[in-house]
Amino acid sequence: MASYNLLLLPGDGIGPEVMAEVEKLVGWFTKTGIARFETEKDLVGGCAYDAHGVAITDAAMDRAQAADAVLFGAVGGPKWDKVAYEHRPEAGLLRLRKELGLFANLRPAICYPALADASSLKRELVEGLDIVIVRELTGGVYFGEPKEIVTLESGEKRAVDTQLYTTHEIERIARVAFELAKVRRNKVSSAEKRNVMRTGVLWNEVVTRVHKNEYPGVELEHVLADNCGMQLVRNPKQYDVIVTDNLFGDILSDVAAMLTGSLGMLPSASLGAEDPATGKRKALYEPVHGSAPDIAGKGLANPIAMIGSFAMALRYSFSLVKEADMLEKAVANVLDGGLRTKDIAGPGVNAAGTGEVGDAIVREM
Amino acid sequence: MASYNLLLLPGDGIGPEVMAEVEKLVGWFTKTGIARFETEKDLVGGCAYDAHGVAITDAAMDRAQAADAVLFGAVGGPKWDKVAYEHRPEAGLLRLRKELGLFANLRPAICYPALADASSLKRELVEGLDIVIVRELTGGVYFGEPKEIVTLESGEKRAVDTQLYTTHEIERIARVAFELAKVRRNKVSSAEKRNVMRTGVLWNEVVTRVHKNEYPGVELEHVLADNCGMQLVRNPKQYDVIVTDNLFGDILSDVAAMLTGSLGMLPSASLGAEDPATGKRKALYEPVHGSAPDIAGKGLANPIAMIGSFAMALRYSFSLVKEADMLEKAVANVLDGGLRTKDIAGPGVNAAGTGEVGDAIVREM
Ligand SMILES: CC(C)[C@H](C(=O)O)[C@@H](O)C(=O)O
Ligand SMILES: CC(C)[C@H](C(=O)O)[C@@H](O)C(=O)O
Repeated sequence: MASYNLLLLPGDGIGPEVMAEVEKLVGWFTKTGIARFETEKDLVGGCAYDAHGVAITDAAMDRAQAADAVLFGAVGGPKWDKVAYEHRPEAGLLRLRKELGLFANLRPAICYPALADASSLKRELVEGLDIVIVRELTGGVYFGEPKEIVTLESGEKRAVDTQLYTTHEIERIARVAFELAKVRRNKVSSAEKRNVMRTGVLWNEVVTRVHKNEYPGVELEHVLADNCGMQLVRNPKQYDVIVTDNLFGDILSDVAAMLTGSLGMLPSASLGAEDPATGKRKALYEPVHGSAPDIAGKGLANPIAMIGSFAMALRYSFSLVKEADMLEKAVANVLDGGLRTKDIAGPGVNAAGTGEVGDAIVREM
Repeated sequence: MASYNLLLLPGDGIGPEVMAEVEKLVGWFTKTGIARFETEKDLVGGCAYDAHGVAITDAAMDRAQAADAVLFGAVGGPKWDKVAYEHRPEAGLLRLRKELGLFANLRPAICYPALADASSLKRELVEGLDIVIVRELTGGVYFGEPKEIVTLESGEKRAVDTQLYTTHEIERIARVAFELAKVRRNKVSSAEKRNVMRTGVLWNEVVTRVHKNEYPGVELEHVLADNCGMQLVRNPKQYDVIVTDNLFGDILSDVAAMLTGSLGMLPSASLGAEDPATGKRKALYEPVHGSAPDIAGKGLANPIAMIGSFAMALRYSFSLVKEADMLEKAVANVLDGGLRTKDIAGPGVNAAGTGEVGDAIVREM
């Protein structure tokens, strides 16, 4: 039986609750003998700061480097609002992304038919929606230097962030988008602000060249990032794969996620480059939703985004494609059966708890 | 009779058509003797490039500096896609904003009751929507240096944009937002990415201080820009005034505009600082929509956003508040009467032309 190392980083807020449901599935895999997942657990975010004074320890980073995949819950909460910038909960996540080299963030926005009415958009605009945002995750304004606040002689402060992209960084994320489009509906929309930003000009140029030289059979369109935000609201189904930079990806993927009406349902995968020697790639899987401190600890959280992130791990890190399909089908069946947490239950319906939903999904398997 | 200088910059695409309707209103003002507007006209954008090889000439800039207000149509189109970066049509608009010091961009997103069904959002979420995005317009990543593409020794290229904000720039835009909130529903939401960007940290700090020292009576909330994008889709009516930086403002105001379902209806004002000696401020007014090359020259464009921009000029540049109210009422009456251009006519309805709608609004006055 194949055996893999999984590092679980539940984090803060509802993170531990939704991660507990994935642990049930891990147990199911071991029991059925399909695959064995050796799990380790560590701290990240606010809880790591409380325990160690940093958002993630070097030891946890070493474990993440050694793992076959990392499952990440969520970080942050008002409790840590006053923590120094370099130790804020998000710093743990950003360090993981950067040091594991997770440059490709795949964020599907799928509208489950059973939940189409939960969207703020009219049903016909989102029913059957299935798009993926491919967000560059280790470059751009998130990591460029200088990145600082200086106090001028006048006493005024001056803050700087630097948005930086190289040919290579754009090439590799473009390839991820084109490869994905090939097994989907064969269309890539590349979003930037070439009319204002030099990084947008280079982005446009490189994506155009990769398309021409390597993927001429895939349809490519260029769209300004502001217009892309508009078009997502106007008619999201016009898209298949959207590829964009770190900051635009942050906003556009959140807008896209909200369109589906099922934020608690959306998983994501952050992938590194394939190691040519081993064929392996580093990977981290996390739900799109945050730590939701307001409902933490109450057993109300929807575990489906976290479970879906595990399904993405099965697919992208362990090539357990059949099992990933099976798990996604199990989730859909449970939804169709009407068992739902509060966020998607609809008015007047008796909502199920986090554990009930997790148990039902394991039973379906 | 008070007399004012207006510089008209119709620009490209549908710009000249919608500007023509404003000229009818200018004529109406002169005829009624309420105010005399001396108008001059000049080129900006692609048409300026075709005539002079630049997106705006120095002579046109001098006229803009001398005018009491500038009315701007729209710029750009596929015809100029290959023009060098520094001469692209948008460069004309950016030069106007920067050299006139138009740091405060006010973008109302209003959902006209008669048009609520045109929104992609469910009616109850947008009916009666009335929010304003206050976007910083002369700083941030739009103008920070370095802003360049360099070719490295390896042959790779490296592109850089610089996001830069000083205390002073944030203070003055924060004040505009708080002042506006005071005459509206008394709430400001400040959007940034303080969890990732140093400019976001400074933004948050300065807005908090201006609030505490100068506007403690206004409600202030801080929201992460990605979450703001989500919340605009989920429940836009939670907002009153949103204040944000140049780049976030670009995207968030487009998302907000699209929520209303009436892009062809939304005006904007870009304002400079008040000159302490004269009490005057530089100002430019423009519709939120673009140049729409696909329908240009066909008499199909909706002139209401451009006319609404003229109403904002009456209000903010000429203190003709009663007349601004009157003009906005005239627009609403024409809409209620059912006369509509194609973009808002709804299926199966006979759409009116640009000129018909403009004439009807003048008649209402
Ligand atoms: C938590 C935060 C640093 C992060 C980001 O900005 O990337 C989050 O918003 C996301 O989208 O994963
Ligand atoms: C035309 C372009 C330069 C401009 C911008 O990015 O500011 C436009 O999108 C806007 O929002 O006014």
